[in-house]
Amino acid sequence: MAENTGGRHPFYEETLETKPIFQGRMISLQVDTVRLPDGGTATREIVKHPGAVAVLALVEGASKMLVVEQFRKPLEKVQVEIPAGKLEPGEDPLEAAGRELEEETGFRASRLKHMQSFSTSPGFAEEIVHLYFADELTKGEVHLDEEEFLTCEAITLEQAWQYVRDGRICDAKTLLALYAWQLYAATGSWPG
Amino acid sequence: MAENTGGRHPFYEETLETKPIFQGRMISLQVDTVRLPDGGTATREIVKHPGAVAVLALVEGASKMLVVEQFRKPLEKVQVEIPAGKLEPGEDPLEAAGRELEEETGFRASRLKHMQSFSTSPGFAEEIVHLYFADELTKGEVHLDEEEFLTCEAITLEQAWQYVRDGRICDAKTLLALYAWQLYAATGSWPG
Repeated sequence: MAENTGGRHPFYEETLETKPIFQGRMISLQVDTVRLPDGGTATREIVKHPGAVAVLALVEGASKMLVVEQFRKPLEKVQVEIPAGKLEPGEDPLEAAGRELEEETGFRASRLKHMQSFSTSPGFAEEIVHLYFADELTKGEVHLDEEEFLTCEAITLEQAWQYVRDGRICDAKTLLALYAWQLYAATGSWPG
Repeated sequence: MAENTGGRHPFYEETLETKPIFQGRMISLQVDTVRLPDGGTATREIVKHPGAVAVLALVEGASKMLVVEQFRKPLEKVQVEIPAGKLEPGEDPLEAAGRELEEETGFRASRLKHMQSFSTSPGFAEEIVHLYFADELTKGEVHLDEEEFLTCEAITLEQAWQYVRDGRICDAKTLLALYAWQLYAATGSWPG
């Protein structure tokens, strides 16, 4: 069966079959059978995810960042992270970032700047996290989702690195935000 | 039914039931029913993963980093990333980092320095990526896994940022490595 791969990259893997495994509230799982570049076949386990947003929000003259503390069941640990949440169906990431920031921290951002969108686990997950920056904040209202339990605090860069050393901060989006903040604090420029 | 939560964090979620959904080659999936802090129950969708390693490997007088280009089915895109791979059962992350680096790039590291371990998606995935740094490299031998198709190149920091702008680099581990490298290049200090 000759297939037209057009101008596709030589490593492109065509989907021969998609087997849905699970449809959950947060993620779904499918196993794709693909045609490999050498003509063989292989299976790819793929977690589908609507995407997420996260916000590096600086307060008190940009001397502190807002973080939330919550229990993360997959890690069986309480973790400190920047405010974040998953996209609602059809939701614009910029709006979602403002919504999640206010829901989790009670702060409203007058302006959100897109910093970076990134794939968390390109080997098995579709998830993209859109990371935003905000430093003009006004008081809004905390409104947690059902089944969401967290507390918010504002910490300095120094405290944040102590949390990293203590294992309380260990997730990719918060570390990316921290690295970016440290770079900005040291050089006056953001990454890139 | 009174439960002794000992010295546990008030947000701790006790597992009431674990329902295995899928056992794959790379990941497995389970749905846990948990007791919430307010006494209610909820389900948590959890992707189990053995963990992974990644290496920021600098060559040519630390002027270039090694990257590999490969197709990532979950993103339906060819991506440029630092060398990485998942842990074999029981494997030490440091050894795995050296193994993956050589297998994918043909370079052997005389010394690997642990930079950061991080959770990719604490909301649904157990995965931890252990990120290492290497700048003393000798020639070894490329040895790709079956079903693995990739090419390796060495790129400057400037080229790397161009790849970010072009969307060819977009994953968390490679961006963390880039931010760290830029910080080091700008200040002589690594993050933290």
